[in-house]
Amino acid sequence: MSVRELVVLGTASQVPTRYRNHNGYFLLWDGEGILFDPGEGTQRQMLHAGVTAHDITRICVTHLHGDHCLGLPGVIQRLSLDGVDHPVQLAYPASGERFVRRLRYASAFYEVAEVVEHPLRGAEALVAESTKPPFRIVARRLDHGLEAYGYRLEEPDGRRMLPERLAAAGINGPDVGRLQRQGWLDVDGRRVTLEEVSAPRPGQRFAFVMDTRLCDAAFALAEGADLLVCEATFTTRDAALAAEHGHLTAAQAARIATESGARVLVLTHFSQRYRDLSVLLEEAREIFAGECVLARDLTRVRVPPRR
Amino acid sequence: MSVRELVVLGTASQVPTRYRNHNGYFLLWDGEGILFDPGEGTQRQMLHAGVTAHDITRICVTHLHGDHCLGLPGVIQRLSLDGVDHPVQLAYPASGERFVRRLRYASAFYEVAEVVEHPLRGAEALVAESTKPPFRIVARRLDHGLEAYGYRLEEPDGRRMLPERLAAAGINGPDVGRLQRQGWLDVDGRRVTLEEVSAPRPGQRFAFVMDTRLCDAAFALAEGADLLVCEATFTTRDAALAAEHGHLTAAQAARIATESGARVLVLTHFSQRYRDLSVLLEEAREIFAGECVLARDLTRVRVPPRR
Repeated sequence: MSVRELVVLGTASQVPTRYRNHNGYFLLWDGEGILFDPGEGTQRQMLHAGVTAHDITRICVTHLHGDHCLGLPGVIQRLSLDGVDHPVQLAYPASGERFVRRLRYASAFYEVAEVVEHPLRGAEALVAESTKPPFRIVARRLDHGLEAYGYRLEEPDGRRMLPERLAAAGINGPDVGRLQRQGWLDVDGRRVTLEEVSAPRPGQRFAFVMDTRLCDAAFALAEGADLLVCEATFTTRDAALAAEHGHLTAAQAARIATESGARVLVLTHFSQRYRDLSVLLEEAREIFAGECVLARDLTRVRVPPRR
Repeated sequence: MSVRELVVLGTASQVPTRYRNHNGYFLLWDGEGILFDPGEGTQRQMLHAGVTAHDITRICVTHLHGDHCLGLPGVIQRLSLDGVDHPVQLAYPASGERFVRRLRYASAFYEVAEVVEHPLRGAEALVAESTKPPFRIVARRLDHGLEAYGYRLEEPDGRRMLPERLAAAGINGPDVGRLQRQGWLDVDGRRVTLEEVSAPRPGQRFAFVMDTRLCDAAFALAEGADLLVCEATFTTRDAALAAEHGHLTAAQAARIATESGARVLVLTHFSQRYRDLSVLLEEAREIFAGECVLARDLTRVRVPPRR
């Protein structure tokens, strides 16, 4: 079953609030479960959201500030406590390796689950290449002061079969699969190619752009994203604060979404200074014409159907 | 103002539940604020309970299992983030020092608050001796497998002035304070001693007995406690599990309270296996005649008035 959905676990920047836990985002992608930036309390937010340790196949940490990683010890210990028997891949900036060491072994526990580390180096890094389901994850270095990486998940481009062309060519039943696999099929002495009876179908793309100033990498990560999760810590009025602390305003997040051709923009990582976040949404909507939502803890956002 | 009150932050053993966070207990004791066993999510539970980082003067960790300490990084970083300008005393079992190192510096932050460490060694250790307000905190080693300490806060015994005796001796106004300070007062040529006009008044005692099997130390910690917080992970039916994992049953917690002459017993640290905790309360009430309550997250329990 193909389920591609974002489960929002937490949305607060720096400190939690009554209604917003520290960061935490879980991406369901067919059989994969990718946990981004588990802040403190992620373990319990998972429970509230109906996500279990067994659902996690990968953990991607953008950087080693507490609001993006202090939930890691709890999550990692739960993998062992709950007897998760598949390896979990853990990606993080290599410069934060000493912190990851401390977080992985922060308190006494009996380690049985396997966690495979992928420390990221350089401006761009391949994080994962999967065949089932087929996708790759790349990371790009952002501009936050402390080394931070954003992530992008790409499904390979494919082709959409055109039923009317198939019918015209007299192809149906198991022959369709055969044609897809070998790229051609001989029908009554004539060779029909895949290209004749199908159209290009762009793969789906998910992008996760967390703590950063505006930078080329943010645009590259978001390029053509079907779903873009982007930090929007400040309003334009506080743009100086955003620049000083290496963050984005809601308007800047919207600019990234617009210029990169993203379809759905999820704003998150809000400063607690704003009682009413509708200002951020309005700022973003003035710039971005696609669907734009303010992330709320424990809600879900579907990756929209393929273009 | 004299406020002596326990603020319950979390009550779950091992893993959090929908209604119970990992452990966390905050004792308000006049101007002091003592945080016991900050489990993951304590930072946010404090917010829900109206406790701020500035309220914390001491942190006492019983042992280095995750459900008793994974909230430490968040709390310690908040001390700096919120600019707490008094030193905070941190007590923990010396054998857990490597974990405390990792927890204190688990992720990147700018440290400005002062945390003074008190690693505990031996069967009994003096944790603190305070004059204002006057109390001492002692720790005793429990029996949990992993080294664990329970804590006991003792106010020194004092004397309660007897108004009728003071009146009979002709002492009033500022002379009462003078008599209390020097232990005697000459009135019309006669020396009146403090003992003549006052009666002994036992100091208040608070005890915190966490993960342990039944052991002498648990009884010694609870001796004459006005308020005893005691783990009650299991029911008597699961006594074998309790013994195996180094925990108490509710009945054993009640036995500690009864034999040590405690007045109010707060049961906590519940296994998630019990949907209905009233069984634990009933077990305890069959044995302990004093006031007995099941701890609930975000509730408060007053230390009862002095005997």
